[in-house]
Amino acid sequence: MTTLPPCVILNEPQLAENIGAVARVMANFGLSDLRLVRPRDGWPQDRAWASASGADWPLNDARVFDQLEQALSDLNLVLATTARPREALLPVTTPREAARRAGLAASQGERVGLLFGGERAGLETADIALCHAIVTVPIDPKFHSLNLAQAVAVLAYEWRLTQSEAPPPRFGPPPEPADLGALVGFFGQLESELEAAGFFHPPEKRASMVRNLRVIFSRAAPSEQEVRTLRGVVTALSRGRGRVLAKLALKAGEDSKSS
Amino acid sequence: MTTLPPCVILNEPQLAENIGAVARVMANFGLSDLRLVRPRDGWPQDRAWASASGADWPLNDARVFDQLEQALSDLNLVLATTARPREALLPVTTPREAARRAGLAASQGERVGLLFGGERAGLETADIALCHAIVTVPIDPKFHSLNLAQAVAVLAYEWRLTQSEAPPPRFGPPPEPADLGALVGFFGQLESELEAAGFFHPPEKRASMVRNLRVIFSRAAPSEQEVRTLRGVVTALSRGRGRVLAKLALKAGEDSKSS
Repeated sequence: MTTLPPCVILNEPQLAENIGAVARVMANFGLSDLRLVRPRDGWPQDRAWASASGADWPLNDARVFDQLEQALSDLNLVLATTARPREALLPVTTPREAARRAGLAASQGERVGLLFGGERAGLETADIALCHAIVTVPIDPKFHSLNLAQAVAVLAYEWRLTQSEAPPPRFGPPPEPADLGALVGFFGQLESELEAAGFFHPPEKRASMVRNLRVIFSRAAPSEQEVRTLRGVVTALSRGRGRVLAKLALKAGEDSKSS
Repeated sequence: MTTLPPCVILNEPQLAENIGAVARVMANFGLSDLRLVRPRDGWPQDRAWASASGADWPLNDARVFDQLEQALSDLNLVLATTARPREALLPVTTPREAARRAGLAASQGERVGLLFGGERAGLETADIALCHAIVTVPIDPKFHSLNLAQAVAVLAYEWRLTQSEAPPPRFGPPPEPADLGALVGFFGQLESELEAAGFFHPPEKRASMVRNLRVIFSRAAPSEQEVRTLRGVVTALSRGRGRVLAKLALKAGEDSKSS
Protein backbone atom coordinates (compact mmCIF):
# COMPACT_ATOMS: atom_id res chain seq x y z
CA MET A 1 0.00 0.00 0.00
CA THR A 2 1.41 3.38 -0.92
CA THR A 3 1.56 6.07 1.73
CA LEU A 4 0.35 9.29 0.16
CA PRO A 5 1.52 12.46 1.89
CA PRO A 6 -1.26 14.75 3.13
CA CYS A 7 -2.65 17.43 0.89
CA VAL A 8 -2.68 21.03 2.09
CA ILE A 9 -5.93 22.97 1.79
CA LEU A 10 -5.85 26.75 2.14
CA ASN A 11 -9.31 28.16 2.78
CA GLU A 12 -9.71 31.72 1.48
CA PRO A 13 -6.01 32.59 1.41
CA GLN A 14 -5.34 36.28 0.86
CA LEU A 15 -1.75 36.89 -0.20
CA ALA A 16 -0.25 35.16 -3.22
CA GLU A 17 3.18 35.51 -1.55
CA ASN A 18 1.97 33.34 1.28
CA ILE A 19 0.61 30.74 -1.11
CA GLY A 20 4.05 30.61 -2.72
CA ALA A 21 5.75 30.35 0.67
CA VAL A 22 3.40 27.49 1.53
CA ALA A 23 4.33 25.70 -1.71
CA ARG A 24 8.00 26.13 -0.89
CA VAL A 25 7.74 24.65 2.58
CA MET A 26 5.51 21.84 1.29
CA ALA A 27 8.29 20.93 -1.14
CA ASN A 28 10.84 21.11 1.68
CA PHE A 29 8.97 18.44 3.60
CA GLY A 30 7.85 16.23 0.71
CA LEU A 31 4.27 17.42 0.19
CA SER A 32 2.88 18.41 -3.20
CA ASP A 33 -0.94 18.34 -3.33
CA LEU A 34 -2.11 21.94 -2.81
CA ARG A 35 -5.79 22.97 -2.88
CA LEU A 36 -7.08 26.52 -2.76
CA VAL A 37 -10.62 27.45 -1.75
CA ARG A 38 -11.68 30.88 -2.98
CA PRO A 39 -8.26 32.56 -3.08
CA ARG A 40 -8.98 36.26 -2.54
CA ASP A 41 -7.12 37.59 -5.58
CA GLY A 42 -7.99 34.77 -7.95
CA TRP A 43 -5.68 32.19 -9.43
CA PRO A 44 -3.06 31.87 -10.85
CA GLN A 45 -1.01 34.74 -9.40
CA ASP A 46 2.56 35.40 -10.55
CA ARG A 47 3.60 36.51 -7.09
CA ALA A 48 3.00 33.01 -5.76
CA TRP A 49 5.57 31.55 -8.15
CA ALA A 50 7.99 34.38 -7.34
CA SER A 51 7.92 33.56 -3.64
CA ALA A 52 8.14 29.80 -4.06
CA SER A 53 11.87 29.92 -4.83
CA GLY A 54 11.61 27.19 -7.44
CA ALA A 55 9.05 24.97 -5.70
CA ASP A 56 6.80 25.37 -8.71
CA TRP A 57 5.13 21.97 -8.90
CA PRO A 58 2.68 22.38 -6.02
CA LEU A 59 1.59 25.66 -7.62
CA ASN A 60 1.42 24.29 -11.16
CA ASP A 61 -0.78 21.44 -9.98
CA ALA A 62 -2.82 23.43 -7.45
CA ARG A 63 -6.56 22.98 -7.74
CA VAL A 64 -9.05 25.75 -7.00
CA PHE A 65 -12.46 25.14 -5.44
CA ASP A 66 -15.54 27.25 -4.78
CA GLN A 67 -16.59 25.28 -1.77
CA LEU A 68 -14.57 23.79 1.04
CA GLU A 69 -16.74 20.66 0.92
CA GLN A 70 -15.59 20.03 -2.65
CA ALA A 71 -11.94 20.43 -1.73
CA LEU A 72 -12.31 17.84 1.02
CA SER A 73 -14.61 15.39 -0.68
CA ASP A 74 -12.05 12.64 -1.40
CA LEU A 75 -10.36 12.84 2.01
CA ASN A 76 -10.78 10.42 4.89
CA LEU A 77 -9.13 12.45 7.64
CA VAL A 78 -9.03 16.24 7.83
CA LEU A 79 -7.01 18.06 10.48
CA ALA A 80 -7.73 21.77 10.87
CA THR A 81 -5.01 24.04 12.19
CA THR A 82 -6.37 27.08 13.93
CA ALA A 83 -5.08 29.42 16.60
CA ARG A 84 -8.51 30.13 17.92
CA PRO A 85 -11.00 27.34 18.29
CA ARG A 86 -13.80 29.56 19.52
CA GLU A 87 -15.66 26.59 20.85
CA ALA A 88 -14.13 23.29 21.69
CA LEU A 89 -16.21 21.34 19.22
CA LEU A 90 -13.61 18.78 18.36
CA PRO A 91 -10.63 17.25 20.08
CA VAL A 92 -7.81 19.80 20.24
CA THR A 93 -4.45 18.26 19.60
CA THR A 94 -0.82 19.20 19.10
CA PRO A 95 1.02 19.19 15.77
CA ARG A 96 3.02 16.20 16.95
CA GLU A 97 0.00 14.15 17.94
CA ALA A 98 -1.84 15.19 14.78
CA ALA A 99 1.09 14.10 12.65
CA ARG A 100 1.13 10.73 14.38
CA ARG A 101 -2.54 10.30 13.57
CA ALA A 102 -2.00 11.45 9.99
CA GLY A 103 0.96 9.12 9.57
CA LEU A 104 -0.98 6.13 10.86
CA ALA A 105 -3.98 6.91 8.68
CA ALA A 106 -1.85 7.41 5.58
CA SER A 107 0.01 4.17 6.20
CA GLN A 108 -3.35 2.42 6.03
CA GLY A 109 -4.16 3.96 2.67
CA GLU A 110 -6.31 6.84 3.90
CA ARG A 111 -6.19 10.25 2.25
CA VAL A 112 -5.28 12.94 4.76
CA GLY A 113 -5.77 16.70 4.48
CA LEU A 114 -4.24 19.53 6.47
CA LEU A 115 -6.61 22.50 6.46
CA PHE A 116 -5.58 26.08 7.14
CA GLY A 117 -7.68 29.24 7.26
CA GLY A 118 -6.97 32.58 5.66
CA GLU A 119 -4.46 35.06 7.07
CA ARG A 120 -6.94 37.33 8.75
CA ALA A 121 -10.05 35.35 9.60
CA GLY A 122 -8.73 31.85 10.21
CA LEU A 123 -11.32 29.11 10.04
CA GLU A 124 -15.00 29.52 10.78
CA THR A 125 -16.82 27.12 13.03
CA ALA A 126 -18.76 25.83 10.03
CA ASP A 127 -15.46 24.90 8.33
CA ILE A 128 -14.19 23.17 11.44
CA ALA A 129 -17.37 21.12 11.68
CA LEU A 130 -16.21 19.26 8.55
CA CYS A 131 -12.96 18.18 10.19
CA HIS A 132 -11.92 15.40 12.52
CA ALA A 133 -9.63 17.27 14.87
CA ILE A 134 -8.29 20.74 15.59
CA VAL A 135 -4.55 21.28 15.70
CA THR A 136 -3.09 24.22 17.55
CA VAL A 137 0.53 25.17 17.28
CA PRO A 138 1.80 25.87 20.81
CA ILE A 139 2.59 29.52 20.31
CA ASP A 140 3.17 32.14 22.96
CA PRO A 141 -0.21 33.64 24.00
CA LYS A 142 1.53 37.02 24.11
CA PHE A 143 2.05 36.98 20.32
CA HIS A 144 -0.09 34.54 18.44
CA SER A 145 -0.01 36.04 14.95
CA LEU A 146 1.52 33.01 13.25
CA ASN A 147 2.33 33.39 9.56
CA LEU A 148 0.35 31.01 7.36
CA ALA A 149 3.43 29.39 5.81
CA GLN A 150 4.95 28.97 9.27
CA ALA A 151 1.88 27.10 10.43
CA VAL A 152 2.12 24.84 7.39
CA ALA A 153 5.84 24.43 8.09
CA VAL A 154 5.27 23.10 11.59
CA LEU A 155 2.67 20.58 10.45
CA ALA A 156 4.66 19.52 7.39
CA TYR A 157 7.81 19.15 9.48
CA GLU A 158 6.01 16.97 12.00
CA TRP A 159 4.53 14.93 9.16
CA ARG A 160 7.96 14.33 7.72
CA LEU A 161 9.28 13.11 11.06
CA THR A 162 6.58 10.45 11.09
CA GLN A 163 7.88 9.19 7.78
CA SER A 164 11.49 8.85 8.86
CA GLU A 165 10.92 7.51 12.36
CA ALA A 166 9.64 4.05 13.17
CA PRO A 167 5.87 3.76 12.95
CA PRO A 168 4.06 3.59 16.29
CA PRO A 169 2.92 0.16 17.48
CA ARG A 170 -0.55 -0.67 16.29
CA PHE A 171 -3.53 -1.89 18.15
CA GLY A 172 -6.39 -2.99 15.94
CA PRO A 173 -7.03 -0.26 13.40
CA PRO A 174 -10.07 1.99 13.81
CA PRO A 175 -12.49 1.80 10.89
CA GLU A 176 -11.36 3.84 7.92
CA PRO A 177 -13.43 7.02 7.93
CA ALA A 178 -15.70 7.57 4.95
CA ASP A 179 -14.66 10.34 2.63
CA LEU A 180 -16.14 13.74 3.29
CA GLY A 181 -18.42 13.49 0.30
CA ALA A 182 -20.27 10.59 1.87
CA LEU A 183 -20.52 12.40 5.19
CA VAL A 184 -21.79 15.58 3.57
CA GLY A 185 -24.35 13.53 1.67
CA PHE A 186 -25.59 12.13 4.95
CA PHE A 187 -25.73 15.63 6.42
CA GLY A 188 -27.92 16.71 3.52
CA GLN A 189 -30.33 13.85 4.08
CA LEU A 190 -30.48 14.33 7.84
CA GLU A 191 -30.99 18.05 7.61
CA SER A 192 -33.71 17.91 4.99
CA GLU A 193 -35.59 15.30 7.00
CA LEU A 194 -35.21 17.39 10.13
CA GLU A 195 -36.41 20.41 8.17
CA ALA A 196 -39.50 18.50 7.11
CA ALA A 197 -40.05 17.40 10.69
CA GLY A 198 -39.98 20.96 11.98
CA PHE A 199 -36.84 20.37 14.04
CA PHE A 200 -35.16 23.66 13.23
CA HIS A 201 -36.95 26.01 15.52
CA PRO A 202 -36.61 28.95 15.75
CA PRO A 203 -35.44 29.37 12.13
CA GLU A 204 -32.69 31.88 13.03
CA LYS A 205 -31.01 29.15 15.06
CA ARG A 206 -30.90 26.77 12.08
CA ALA A 207 -27.27 27.47 11.16
CA SER A 208 -25.93 26.85 14.63
CA MET A 209 -28.14 23.81 15.10
CA VAL A 210 -26.83 22.34 11.85
CA ARG A 211 -23.27 23.04 12.91
CA ASN A 212 -23.72 21.46 16.30
CA LEU A 213 -25.25 18.37 14.72
CA ARG A 214 -22.56 17.98 12.09
CA VAL A 215 -19.76 18.18 14.57
CA ILE A 216 -21.12 15.19 16.48
CA PHE A 217 -20.92 13.02 13.40
CA SER A 218 -17.61 14.47 12.22
CA ARG A 219 -16.12 13.57 15.57
CA ALA A 220 -17.41 10.03 15.22
CA ALA A 221 -15.49 9.71 11.92
CA PRO A 222 -17.90 7.03 10.66
CA SER A 223 -16.80 4.52 8.02
CA GLU A 224 -18.53 4.15 4.65
CA GLN A 225 -20.57 1.31 6.09
CA GLU A 226 -21.48 3.34 9.14
CA VAL A 227 -22.59 6.27 7.00
CA ARG A 228 -24.88 3.90 5.13
CA THR A 229 -26.21 2.68 8.47
CA LEU A 230 -26.84 6.23 9.62
CA ARG A 231 -28.68 7.00 6.39
CA GLY A 232 -30.79 3.93 6.96
CA VAL A 233 -31.54 5.11 10.48
CA VAL A 234 -32.73 8.50 9.27
CA THR A 235 -34.82 6.92 6.53
CA ALA A 236 -36.33 4.41 8.93
CA LEU A 237 -37.14 7.00 11.56
CA SER A 238 -38.60 9.54 9.18
CA ARG A 239 -40.42 7.21 6.77
CA GLY A 240 -41.00 3.99 8.68
CA ARG A 241 -42.85 5.52 11.57
CA GLY A 242 -44.74 7.72 9.16
CA ARG A 243 -45.83 4.64 7.24
CA VAL A 244 -47.02 2.93 10.41
CA LEU A 245 -49.05 5.94 11.47
CA ALA A 246 -50.38 6.50 7.99
CA LYS A 247 -51.53 2.88 7.87
CA LEU A 248 -53.25 3.26 11.24
CA ALA A 249 -54.91 6.47 10.10
CA LEU A 250 -55.93 4.88 6.82
CA LYS A 251 -57.43 2.00 8.75
CA ALA A 252 -59.23 4.51 10.99
CA GLY A 253 -60.57 6.20 7.87
CA GLU A 254 -61.77 2.90 6.43
CA ASP A 255 -63.32 1.95 9.75
CA SER A 256 -65.20 5.23 9.91
CA LYS A 257 -66.27 4.80 6.29
CA SER A 258 -67.65 1.31 6.89
CA SER A 259 -69.39 2.29 10.13
CA MET B 1 17.34 29.80 38.62
CA THR B 2 15.67 31.45 35.65
CA THR B 3 15.53 29.61 32.34
CA LEU B 4 16.47 32.09 29.65
CA PRO B 5 15.22 31.24 26.17
CA PRO B 6 17.91 30.87 23.50
CA CYS B 7 19.03 33.85 21.49
CA VAL B 8 18.92 33.72 17.70
CA ILE B 9 22.03 34.75 15.78
CA LEU B 10 21.75 35.48 12.05
CA ASN B 11 25.14 35.46 10.36
CA GLU B 12 25.28 37.75 7.31
CA PRO B 13 21.53 37.85 6.65
CA GLN B 14 20.62 39.37 3.30
CA LEU B 15 16.94 40.35 3.15
CA ALA B 16 15.42 42.65 5.74
CA GLU B 17 12.06 40.96 5.10
CA ASN B 18 13.54 37.71 6.31
CA ILE B 19 14.93 39.36 9.44
CA GLY B 20 11.42 40.65 10.16
CA ALA B 21 9.91 37.21 9.54
CA VAL B 22 12.48 35.73 11.92
CA ALA B 23 11.48 38.28 14.59
CA ARG B 24 7.84 37.36 14.10
CA VAL B 25 8.36 33.65 14.53
CA MET B 26 10.68 34.22 17.48
CA ALA B 27 7.85 36.11 19.16
CA ASN B 28 5.43 33.30 18.28
CA PHE B 29 7.53 30.84 20.22
CA GLY B 30 8.62 33.04 23.11
CA LEU B 31 12.10 34.10 21.98
CA SER B 32 13.26 37.73 21.93
CA ASP B 33 17.06 38.07 21.88
CA LEU B 34 18.06 38.65 18.24
CA ARG B 35 21.65 39.24 17.11
CA LEU B 36 22.74 40.21 13.63
CA VAL B 37 26.25 39.70 12.28
CA ARG B 38 27.09 41.94 9.29
CA PRO B 39 23.56 42.30 7.83
CA ARG B 40 24.11 42.92 4.12
CA ASP B 41 22.01 46.06 3.79
CA GLY B 42 22.92 47.60 7.13
CA TRP B 43 20.73 48.13 10.15
CA PRO B 44 18.02 49.22 10.94
CA GLN B 45 15.88 48.51 7.87
CA ASP B 46 12.23 49.57 7.76
CA ARG B 47 11.29 46.51 5.73
CA ALA B 48 12.16 44.30 8.67
CA TRP B 49 9.58 45.99 10.86
CA ALA B 50 7.03 45.87 8.04
CA SER B 51 7.32 42.11 7.76
CA ALA B 52 7.32 41.43 11.51
CA SER B 53 3.54 41.98 11.77
CA GLY B 54 3.86 43.71 15.11
CA ALA B 55 6.63 41.60 16.63
CA ASP B 56 8.70 44.73 17.03
CA TRP B 57 10.55 44.05 20.24
CA PRO B 58 13.11 41.56 18.93
CA LEU B 59 13.92 44.10 16.20
CA ASN B 60 14.00 47.11 18.53
CA ASP B 61 16.41 45.32 20.83
CA ALA B 62 18.46 43.58 18.12
CA ARG B 63 22.21 43.95 18.46
CA VAL B 64 24.55 44.18 15.50
CA PHE B 65 28.06 42.70 15.48
CA ASP B 66 31.02 42.85 13.14
CA GLN B 67 32.33 39.48 14.13
CA LEU B 68 30.51 36.24 14.84
CA GLU B 69 32.85 35.62 17.79
CA GLN B 70 31.57 38.77 19.47
CA ALA B 71 27.95 37.80 18.94
CA LEU B 72 28.56 34.46 20.63
CA SER B 73 30.89 35.60 23.39
CA ASP B 74 28.45 35.33 26.33
CA LEU B 75 26.94 31.99 25.27
CA ASN B 76 27.61 28.59 26.80
CA LEU B 77 26.06 26.42 24.11
CA VAL B 78 25.75 27.27 20.42
CA LEU B 79 23.79 25.10 18.00
CA ALA B 80 24.32 25.82 14.30
CA THR B 81 21.56 25.04 11.85
CA THR B 82 22.76 24.28 8.36
CA ALA B 83 21.43 22.29 5.47
CA ARG B 84 24.89 21.33 4.29
CA PRO B 85 27.46 20.25 6.82
CA ARG B 86 30.33 20.09 4.33
CA GLU B 87 32.52 18.23 6.72
CA ALA B 88 31.41 16.28 9.73
CA LEU B 89 33.26 18.55 12.11
CA LEU B 90 30.74 18.28 14.85
CA PRO B 91 27.97 15.98 15.95
CA VAL B 92 25.02 16.35 13.56
CA THR B 93 21.71 16.28 15.33
CA THR B 94 18.01 16.79 14.71
CA PRO B 95 16.00 19.87 15.74
CA ARG B 96 14.23 17.76 18.35
CA GLU B 97 17.40 16.43 19.90
CA ALA B 98 19.02 19.86 19.74
CA ALA B 99 16.04 21.41 21.52
CA ARG B 100 16.28 18.81 24.26
CA ARG B 101 19.92 19.66 24.76
CA ALA B 102 19.15 23.39 24.71
CA GLY B 103 16.32 22.95 27.21
CA LEU B 104 18.52 20.99 29.58
CA ALA B 105 21.35 23.51 29.33
CA ALA B 106 19.04 26.49 29.82
CA SER B 107 17.43 24.84 32.83
CA GLN B 108 20.89 24.71 34.40
CA GLY B 109 21.42 28.42 33.84
CA GLU B 110 23.45 28.19 30.64
CA ARG B 111 23.02 30.73 27.87
CA VAL B 112 22.08 29.03 24.61
CA GLY B 113 22.34 30.39 21.07
CA LEU B 114 20.77 29.19 17.84
CA LEU B 115 22.95 30.18 14.88
CA PHE B 116 21.75 30.48 11.28
CA GLY B 117 23.67 31.39 8.13
CA GLY B 118 22.68 33.84 5.43
CA GLU B 119 20.12 33.03 2.76
CA ARG B 120 22.55 32.21 0.01
CA ALA B 121 25.79 31.02 1.53
CA GLY B 122 24.70 29.35 4.76
CA LEU B 123 27.43 28.88 7.32
CA GLU B 124 31.11 28.55 6.56
CA THR B 125 33.21 25.87 8.14
CA ALA B 126 35.02 28.53 10.16
CA ASP B 127 31.69 29.67 11.62
CA ILE B 128 30.65 26.13 12.46
CA ALA B 129 33.93 25.54 14.25
CA LEU B 130 32.72 27.98 16.93
CA CYS B 131 29.67 25.85 17.70
CA HIS B 132 28.90 22.79 19.79
CA ALA B 133 26.66 20.89 17.42
CA ILE B 134 25.19 21.05 13.94
CA VAL B 135 21.45 20.85 13.52
CA THR B 136 19.92 19.80 10.23
CA VAL B 137 16.23 20.11 9.54
CA PRO B 138 15.03 16.87 7.92
CA ILE B 139 14.03 18.33 4.59
CA ASP B 140 13.42 16.49 1.35
CA PRO B 141 16.74 16.14 -0.49
CA LYS B 142 14.85 16.87 -3.70
CA PHE B 143 14.13 20.44 -2.56
CA HIS B 144 16.35 21.71 0.22
CA SER B 145 16.00 25.45 -0.24
CA LEU B 146 14.57 26.14 3.22
CA ASN B 147 13.57 29.73 3.92
CA LEU B 148 15.60 31.31 6.73
CA ALA B 149 12.56 32.15 8.85
CA GLN B 150 11.22 28.61 8.35
CA ALA B 151 14.46 27.16 9.69
CA VAL B 152 14.21 29.44 12.72
CA ALA B 153 10.54 28.43 13.07
CA VAL B 154 11.36 24.72 13.33
CA LEU B 155 14.04 25.27 15.96
CA ALA B 156 11.98 27.79 17.93
CA TYR B 157 8.97 25.48 17.81
CA GLU B 158 11.00 22.56 19.12
CA TRP B 159 12.44 24.79 21.85
CA ARG B 160 8.98 25.80 22.94
CA LEU B 161 7.86 22.19 23.17
CA THR B 162 10.65 21.54 25.66
CA GLN B 163 9.19 24.31 27.80
CA SER B 164 5.61 23.07 27.72
CA GLU B 165 4.63 19.69 26.41
CA ALA B 166 1.04 20.31 27.48
CA PRO B 167 -1.32 21.76 24.88
CA PRO B 168 -2.03 25.46 25.28
CA PRO B 169 -4.41 25.94 28.19
CA ARG B 170 -6.28 28.94 26.89
CA PHE B 171 -8.60 26.91 24.66
CA GLY B 172 -11.53 25.34 26.38
CA PRO B 173 -11.39 21.58 26.85
CA PRO B 174 -13.32 19.37 24.42
CA PRO B 175 -16.86 18.76 25.59
CA GLU B 176 -16.99 16.43 28.56
CA PRO B 177 -18.63 13.21 27.41
CA ALA B 178 -22.03 12.50 28.89
CA ASP B 179 -22.09 9.72 31.42
CA LEU B 180 -22.92 6.26 30.19
CA GLY B 181 -26.38 6.39 31.69
CA ALA B 182 -27.34 9.28 29.43
CA LEU B 183 -25.88 7.55 26.41
CA VAL B 184 -27.63 4.28 27.19
CA GLY B 185 -30.88 6.20 27.67
CA PHE B 186 -30.45 7.60 24.19
CA PHE B 187 -29.69 4.12 22.83
CA GLY B 188 -32.93 2.90 24.36
CA GLN B 189 -34.95 5.65 22.71
CA LEU B 190 -33.25 5.21 19.35
CA GLU B 191 -33.60 1.46 19.32
CA SER B 192 -37.25 1.42 20.35
CA GLU B 193 -38.08 3.96 17.64
CA LEU B 194 -36.16 1.91 15.10
CA GLU B 195 -37.95 -1.17 16.30
CA ALA B 196 -41.30 0.54 15.75
CA ALA B 197 -40.18 1.66 12.32
CA GLY B 198 -39.30 -1.85 11.24
CA PHE B 199 -35.60 -1.08 10.91
CA PHE B 200 -34.31 -4.30 12.48
CA HIS B 201 -34.69 -6.73 9.67
CA PRO B 202 -34.19 -9.67 9.67
CA PRO B 203 -34.81 -10.07 13.40
CA GLU B 204 -31.86 -12.41 13.99
CA LYS B 205 -29.55 -9.58 12.96
CA ARG B 206 -30.97 -7.22 15.55
CA ALA B 207 -28.19 -7.72 18.10
CA SER B 208 -25.37 -6.99 15.68
CA MET B 209 -27.24 -4.06 14.15
CA VAL B 210 -27.70 -2.55 17.61
CA ARG B 211 -24.04 -3.06 18.39
CA ASN B 212 -22.92 -1.43 15.14
CA LEU B 213 -25.17 1.55 15.78
CA ARG B 214 -24.06 2.04 19.36
CA VAL B 215 -20.40 2.06 18.48
CA ILE B 216 -20.86 5.03 16.16
CA PHE B 217 -22.26 7.15 18.95
CA SER B 218 -19.86 5.85 21.55
CA ARG B 219 -16.98 6.90 19.35
CA ALA B 220 -18.44 10.37 19.02
CA ALA B 221 -18.38 10.66 22.82
CA PRO B 222 -21.23 13.20 22.82
CA SER B 223 -21.65 15.66 25.69
CA GLU B 224 -24.82 15.85 27.82
CA GLN B 225 -26.04 18.66 25.58
CA GLU B 226 -25.26 16.68 22.45
CA VAL B 227 -27.11 13.64 23.78
CA ARG B 228 -30.13 15.88 24.31
CA THR B 229 -29.74 17.11 20.73
CA LEU B 230 -29.58 13.56 19.43
CA ARG B 231 -32.70 12.62 21.41
CA GLY B 232 -34.42 15.61 19.86
CA VAL B 233 -33.33 14.45 16.41
CA VAL B 234 -34.80 11.00 16.93
CA THR B 235 -38.02 12.44 18.32
CA ALA B 236 -38.32 14.89 15.44
CA LEU B 237 -37.63 12.28 12.79
CA SER B 238 -39.93 9.64 14.25
CA ARG B 239 -42.74 11.80 15.59
CA GLY B 240 -42.60 15.05 13.63
CA ARG B 241 -42.87 13.42 10.23
CA GLY B 242 -45.27 10.84 11.65
CA ARG B 243 -47.45 13.59 13.05
CA VAL B 244 -47.61 15.32 9.71
CA LEU B 245 -48.63 12.13 7.92
CA ALA B 246 -51.04 11.15 10.67
CA LYS B 247 -52.69 14.53 10.40
CA LEU B 248 -52.99 14.10 6.66
CA ALA B 249 -54.42 10.61 7.08
CA LEU B 250 -56.80 11.81 9.78
CA LYS B 251 -57.94 14.56 7.48
CA ALA B 252 -58.40 11.97 4.72
CA GLY B 253 -60.45 9.92 7.16
CA GLU B 254 -62.58 12.92 8.06
CA ASP B 255 -62.99 13.82 4.41
CA SER B 256 -64.17 10.30 3.61
CA LYS B 257 -66.47 10.41 6.61
CA SER B 258 -68.08 13.69 5.55
CA SER B 259 -68.44 12.56 1.96
